[in-house]
Order: sequence, then C-alpha cells, then structure tokens
Amino acid sequence: MQQSLEQIHSNVKSWLGESIPFINKSLQQSLTVETKRDRRDLVSNIDKQMELLLTAKINECYPTHQVLGEETANSFQLGTLEHLWIIDPIDGTANFLKQKDHFCILIAYYEQGIGKLGYMYDVVNEDLYHAVYEQGAYKNGEPIRRPEAIALEEGLVSCDARNWCEQPRFQKLMKHCFDIRYFGCGGIDSIHVIQGKFAAFLTSVSGPWDKAAQMIFAKELGLKLVRFDGSEVDHLTGGDYILANEGCIDEILSIMKDV
Amino acid sequence: MQQSLEQIHSNVKSWLGESIPFINKSLQQSLTVETKRDRRDLVSNIDKQMELLLTAKINECYPTHQVLGEETANSFQLGTLEHLWIIDPIDGTANFLKQKDHFCILIAYYEQGIGKLGYMYDVVNEDLYHAVYEQGAYKNGEPIRRPEAIALEEGLVSCDARNWCEQPRFQKLMKHCFDIRYFGCGGIDSIHVIQGKFAAFLTSVSGPWDKAAQMIFAKELGLKLVRFDGSEVDHLTGGDYILANEGCIDEILSIMKDV
Repeated sequence: MQQSLEQIHSNVKSWLGESIPFINKSLQQSLTVETKRDRRDLVSNIDKQMELLLTAKINECYPTHQVLGEETANSFQLGTLEHLWIIDPIDGTANFLKQKDHFCILIAYYEQGIGKLGYMYDVVNEDLYHAVYEQGAYKNGEPIRRPEAIALEEGLVSCDARNWCEQPRFQKLMKHCFDIRYFGCGGIDSIHVIQGKFAAFLTSVSGPWDKAAQMIFAKELGLKLVRFDGSEVDHLTGGDYILANEGCIDEILSIMKDV
Repeated sequence: MQQSLEQIHSNVKSWLGESIPFINKSLQQSLTVETKRDRRDLVSNIDKQMELLLTAKINECYPTHQVLGEETANSFQLGTLEHLWIIDPIDGTANFLKQKDHFCILIAYYEQGIGKLGYMYDVVNEDLYHAVYEQGAYKNGEPIRRPEAIALEEGLVSCDARNWCEQPRFQKLMKHCFDIRYFGCGGIDSIHVIQGKFAAFLTSVSGPWDKAAQMIFAKELGLKLVRFDGSEVDHLTGGDYILANEGCIDEILSIMKDV
C-alpha cells in the first residue's frame, strides 16, 4: 500500500474503534427517530451524530478533503473532488432500531475519482471488511479470496421482494435463482456477496454512500457492480444497482431486460 | 426445573458441545449433497451424520425414549410417545452449504405430548437458545424477556417472498408490515421473533422438527404459533405456520383470510 494510503487506513481503523463505544451505548438508550422519504425510511439521532463524529475525524486529519455523508448530503458543496470521502454512518437504520443488529458503517475514500479505500464495518459482529485499490480485499486483515463463479440457479439472491413482488421480471429472477434472502441492509447484504455466500444483491434505491465502498470491493474481487440496465455506475450518483458474482450477472441482466 | 429435566438439559448441552467440532470440521470439507422434494430441498451427508450422532446420544442416555428426526422420519414407528424427542440436525441446509452460516440445530423434548424443553442452537455464533416448560426462555443461560407488542406496520416480517410474490394476500401482508426480511432458516428466523427483532415468521412447508422447539418458546414468551388459518398447530404434524408477536397476529390472520 502506498505510504499515504497506509496512513489513511490506520486512521480509519482507529476512528472506527473509537466509534464502537458510542454505538454500543446508543443500543441501550431510547433514540429519537424521524422519517425521511416515507414511513420506512428512518433516521435516528445516532445516524446524525455518527456522521458528525466521523466527519470531524476526517476534517481533523485531512482538512482539505471533502466529505459526502448520507445525513448531510443536502448541504454538500461540489468542489474539486481531489480527495473525497463518502460515508454512510449507519447503513441499515431500520435494522439498527428494530433488531439492534445487521447494520454497518460504510466508508469510501476516493482520489481524483478513483476508489482507493473501501470499508464495510459490521458493528455487532465487530468484523471489519476493507478493500484497497489494486491490492485486494480483507476481512479483519485476512485476505478475502475472489468468490468462485456461482450460476444463478445455484445462487442465493438478496433483493427487496416487498417492492418488487408484482413485477414480472423480479418474479422471474426469484424463480430462476436458487432462493432469495434479504437482510435489509445494503452493506450486510453486500458482505455476503463479496464472500461468495450470496450470488447477488439488487437494490432500486441508493445514494452514493450506498455503493461507493462496494464499488472498490467489486473491482478487487472480480465482481460486477452495474445498473439494472447493465450500464456503468458512477460513485457520485444514486439509482438502482446490482452487485453480482460473475457467474450469474449475464443471466440477471438478461432477465432484467424483460420489463 | 424439575430434577429430571435439569438432568436432561445438562445432557443436551453436552451433546451440542460435542457436536460443534464435527460441524466445524465439515464446514472445511467438500460434502455430499442430494435433493429431496425439489432442487431447492437439499440434504447433505452432514445432516444425516448429525442426526445419527444426536440419536445415538439420546438412545444411550434414554433407551426408552423415541426420536423423530427430519432425516429418518420415514422409518419412524409411532409408539406410546411418552417421551419423544423431535430433532432437526441441521435446519437451513441450503445456508449451511452456500453460506456456511445462518443454520441451526433444533431439538425438542416432549413428555406425554407436552413440550418440556426446546433448543435452537445457532452454530456459527455459538448461541444456545432454550425454553423450559413454565420456566421461561434463555439465551446462553440468560433469561429472554417477553418481547414487547409490535404492530404490523412497525414490524419486520420474515417470509418466503419467492414462493408467494404472485399471491395477493402475501402482497398485502408485505405492504402492510414495516418491511420484510428473510434468513431462509426457520430456526434463525424464529430466533429473531422470540427476541422481538422480527414481528413474525411465516412458512408454508414444515415438518414436526421445524416447529416442535418453537412451540415451546412461543408458549414461554407470549408469542403465537398457529396455522395460516388461525387454527392450532400440533407438534406431530406438518404444514404451514406463523410464529408471531401478539401485537400483530390478529392483523396477519385477517390478511391471510383474503385468499
């Protein structure tokens, strides 16, 4: 790892370590919860405080870097984007609130538009997944192997069936895969794809923070991360995406064309 | 706990402890996999060996007791059923094979038709959940509190959307709940209901081994375990069932009536 990335990586690990007691404490407290787009899109005071906490750490170490976070995205000023951090302080807020489990922290660091470091931190299990540009992906410091190819009929696919159960193309996808699963947290679902436990994860709604880290993992592990129509994903824009094993991406895209 | 139940409980814990190295070793090996009813209904040599191992332990300690296990159910001889063990050696075989996670061991002990001891053992997390007739339920020896009431619109519901996405009553259920989740392992999904993390779990196919333990947990924790039509479940027969929080069972049953 180049010197500066190593330093950044070391800092991120210590920020995450420092945030654990804050989150664990919050799991014992009653929280303030608001809705965003609809009744299912929740945000708590902990999401906001975690984002402030991480942003403050970044600003302190790297005052010239920009930070794009889920909870403060509306006030984000597009700058030169030379050094950009993209963060989701709590991915899976509904799980955080209702399960106190199956949520994670997502962090990505981009230089000149290139994803250099990606993090998915499974808080409750204390498992840190990270990916480094051209240097692979790791779980708690141990290399993650590229998943073997998984054919769709053999693979578990994670998708939001509630939203899609009336759409023929999703019905077809569900019938053609081995079976569906759904954690309801893009980070946790993605962690299962990068380890070859799931064949694919699909989501129709995302912000940059929901895939900026995953894009770096996908590149390092030979996975595909594309839009439902097969086109490339930009780490700065929102929309639908599929994170999939190379053994089934073509079949999934072929099914997704059947509108 | 009455003296004999305490002794049985102590034995079950030691059997489970002894089976862990066997399962952990199997997770590193290539396994023999067969299909049962259809391509998605898998059984491995480990399921069968685990059932033999547990049955041998029961026979050794309690030679007069009967054992009804998922993998040997076809040869089960209905006896007096005075002392009956009902076991699923690996609940969630597809997860066991494809994820090496999110599977569990289910064991129930019935005396004269009354569920006395129920076990759900989350193997990978090494979490043992057990319930004792009229004495509550426990996670790793610590009491599990009765879950608070969860209204359907606030609750996460676990169900097999792949099978049901074309059925209006399930579409309605999915729209009315907060959101769906799905581990694809009845035991692991049930573990989330008994802890109040999910509001309900529904399955259309089950054997006695898929609910015999859960019925004991439900009774101890004030949860409902009934058929889709609201009728009582018998621990010796198969079929559909709902395990649900008391705060949403009525609404779920009302939706399930809309065929």
